[in-house]
Amino acid sequence: MIDVKPVLFIIGVLLALLGATMLVPAAFDAVAASPDWSVFVVSSLVTIFAGVSLVLTTRTAHPTSLSLRHAFLTTTLSWLSVAAFAALPLLFASPHITYAGAFFESMSGLTTTGSTVLSGLDTAPPGVLIWRGMLHWLGGIGIIVTSVAIMPMLRIGGMQLFRTESSDNSEKIVPRAAQLAAAFGRVYVVMTLACMALLWAAGMTGFEALVHAMATVSTGGFSTSDASIGHFDSPLIEMIIVVFMIGGALPFVLYIRVLGQDRDALWRDTQVRAFFLAILVWTVTLSLWLVLHEHVAPLQALRVSLFNVVSVITTTGFATADYNLWGTFPFAVFFWLILVGGCTGSTSGGIKVFRFVILVTAARRHLRQLVHPNAVIVPTYNRRPVPEAILLSVLSFTTVFFAVFVVLSIVVALLGVDFITAATAVSQALANVGPGLGPIIGPAGNYATMTDPVLTVLAFAMLLGRLELFTVLVLFTRAYWRG
Amino acid sequence: MIDVKPVLFIIGVLLALLGATMLVPAAFDAVAASPDWSVFVVSSLVTIFAGVSLVLTTRTAHPTSLSLRHAFLTTTLSWLSVAAFAALPLLFASPHITYAGAFFESMSGLTTTGSTVLSGLDTAPPGVLIWRGMLHWLGGIGIIVTSVAIMPMLRIGGMQLFRTESSDNSEKIVPRAAQLAAAFGRVYVVMTLACMALLWAAGMTGFEALVHAMATVSTGGFSTSDASIGHFDSPLIEMIIVVFMIGGALPFVLYIRVLGQDRDALWRDTQVRAFFLAILVWTVTLSLWLVLHEHVAPLQALRVSLFNVVSVITTTGFATADYNLWGTFPFAVFFWLILVGGCTGSTSGGIKVFRFVILVTAARRHLRQLVHPNAVIVPTYNRRPVPEAILLSVLSFTTVFFAVFVVLSIVVALLGVDFITAATAVSQALANVGPGLGPIIGPAGNYATMTDPVLTVLAFAMLLGRLELFTVLVLFTRAYWRG
Repeated sequence: MIDVKPVLFIIGVLLALLGATMLVPAAFDAVAASPDWSVFVVSSLVTIFAGVSLVLTTRTAHPTSLSLRHAFLTTTLSWLSVAAFAALPLLFASPHITYAGAFFESMSGLTTTGSTVLSGLDTAPPGVLIWRGMLHWLGGIGIIVTSVAIMPMLRIGGMQLFRTESSDNSEKIVPRAAQLAAAFGRVYVVMTLACMALLWAAGMTGFEALVHAMATVSTGGFSTSDASIGHFDSPLIEMIIVVFMIGGALPFVLYIRVLGQDRDALWRDTQVRAFFLAILVWTVTLSLWLVLHEHVAPLQALRVSLFNVVSVITTTGFATADYNLWGTFPFAVFFWLILVGGCTGSTSGGIKVFRFVILVTAARRHLRQLVHPNAVIVPTYNRRPVPEAILLSVLSFTTVFFAVFVVLSIVVALLGVDFITAATAVSQALANVGPGLGPIIGPAGNYATMTDPVLTVLAFAMLLGRLELFTVLVLFTRAYWRG
Repeated sequence: MIDVKPVLFIIGVLLALLGATMLVPAAFDAVAASPDWSVFVVSSLVTIFAGVSLVLTTRTAHPTSLSLRHAFLTTTLSWLSVAAFAALPLLFASPHITYAGAFFESMSGLTTTGSTVLSGLDTAPPGVLIWRGMLHWLGGIGIIVTSVAIMPMLRIGGMQLFRTESSDNSEKIVPRAAQLAAAFGRVYVVMTLACMALLWAAGMTGFEALVHAMATVSTGGFSTSDASIGHFDSPLIEMIIVVFMIGGALPFVLYIRVLGQDRDALWRDTQVRAFFLAILVWTVTLSLWLVLHEHVAPLQALRVSLFNVVSVITTTGFATADYNLWGTFPFAVFFWLILVGGCTGSTSGGIKVFRFVILVTAARRHLRQLVHPNAVIVPTYNRRPVPEAILLSVLSFTTVFFAVFVVLSIVVALLGVDFITAATAVSQALANVGPGLGPIIGPAGNYATMTDPVLTVLAFAMLLGRLELFTVLVLFTRAYWRG
């Protein structure tokens, strides 16, 4: 059996910190004279109490010496517990929603998904709006640290490609995570402030600029308006957001290198190049379709295509148009584009570009190998050979990703949801995007009409996707608990 | 450069034989006094002439010494040329269709897909009906021989698992194919005659029994009625067809072993067990849904579930009910079930059960490996270890299958088809099933309203799926033509 004490200790620390952050929305609501301020204060006290209790009862453990097996459980349970407590203020604040709805909303926030069950955002008190933005923002830096400090050590889905010298030393996982969080945190804070300042200058109020900056840099997608970014109808605001959505979807490790001496680290990276190529190709083809087939003016076509392609591929999920209504071709493109995702080591979700690069390389190698069965052909990534084990890891990840997508889409359909809604609800949740397709959960809709069981399945899918599937799935194997 | 003479020689022989078989429908039409008899005679003469010309101009070649590279080209071009010429009588016979339509129909026949652009089948002359049945039947035995004699040698998608001692000796490919065709042919003929006799006894006319027997054993799906098997509304006929659809979807190699001394070879096989398990699970869950959710009587629910699940999973595509209308859960199940397919070395298409078995084993191993990074865990299939190379081969196949599915569904949507129709048209074509989902190409519809470009893409998808993708895709690489 695994010793859960160090796991609970870390969760306790995280909950105590989470409880403290709830005082921020309480302050916003108090200033705005919204009665919800007390909801945030009470939730804060409950969460801090739970956190401190856990810390006190488990403080004899030594969390600095986490084993590999502890890391799986700690990662999954941390995200789960934080989401469970972060849901409390959403449950008790106006407007009234069920706990399943509140948990869905807080999981959607933390995993930077951005699907919402709330409407009437334009007139909502500031506390709820800033809390949703903060969940995105905290979840964003959380996943960057998780994917750089923990995932490579867990060897998940080819993430071992991104190991550093210190990755193998599991003794040092906690200090390293803290050190990386500090380094990435600086970049993240500067990006957020820059985004906020530009949005403010472009015409948003200070409050709107703050919430949208947090939701953009984290590739989250919660807005202060039911109409999302379409509410502002400003090409300038859209361009600023496009730049920072891309900023949030690039590998943060490379920012550190660029800030060091390695000026073109970003542009030399295969994953980054493929990511920009994908944005370019889909923006151009969708623009052409809109011009030729739907008779949209060229500049307008380019504007809506670029914004919505970047929003979906970075898994942000902001919307400026209902691309459901663009016709057969864009519908099919978005159905699949939802799954793609940005770069690894960023705030964005999805299958991730580096896996596609490796899959294409592997398929090419496979075809060459069929013609020359005895040749030794080694696929490469970033000009370095990819070992067979990593290839298998990436292929296993992609196959399991599709399998989970298929199984959960059948489960959601079993709960009475039509196929397009069920399939895209699951794929957007797994990829942490936000909107799906169809009239209900499309970019112009929301998740308010979904039943509690559906919302719970989707929240679970968000967690699965955010933690690269295997971190969670491993906990359902006998090998994990016996070993 | 590759020497195409031996390739053309084999195609010539196949075309001459194909031309001769066209005299069968000519005879049926002559007896029925249908003027279409002359269409078949002229098509026969044209095809025989083309075949004999090819043989005569290339007879200096030695087709018995085909190289590995010749095998890819020969296989792909043979299926393509036979489909191109088999389309001739369908083009000139009544009712009038375009060449793209006729080619779609003949490719659908040969690949045992069973998608049709024709309607008014109930009053059609016998020549066209028997020709469609014959295309299924010839294509069925053709793919069994291809998948047992040629695919394992080409190492396609894990098919090397099914190699025999002689597989590596590419010199003997033609004699071995002929020898296997004779052995499997006997089983195939006996199954077809048994199926025909039973259908006749169950109430079909002799002609209907013949056409349906050919379309059942080959897991094809062409019928003599627009209403498919629903036309007969007979539980007995449905049960007979269920048995022989399953018969056509099992590995023919195992029949030979059972007929030898190895009585329980079929039941010991992992793939066969998993195949029956899949049929059982989906029949039971769909029956339960129909009883509980749609208030269908239990026995009727079992009847329609069993027939339609077996029809789709064996990739036959006969229909007795429009499962489009069964609600959200069956719709989602059938959307994905279309891709599954039967066993390898049979007449059925799809991803195939053995690949799912290997994928599940690999995923389990991967999860165990994550917990125990240093353990050596080897996945097994049929109680034998699966080498890493075969695992990679299977994973590459499945990934490329999904990739082709995604790309072609976007292409068909680009041609103006709605997403559900486009996606299921492509998946059924790749898996050689027949009907898709939605009001247009669902089990109650057909492909008559699809445009010529769409039909051409779908015919190409059928060929790709039938030849396990890589046989065709390899021809589009530079390595193939340079090497």
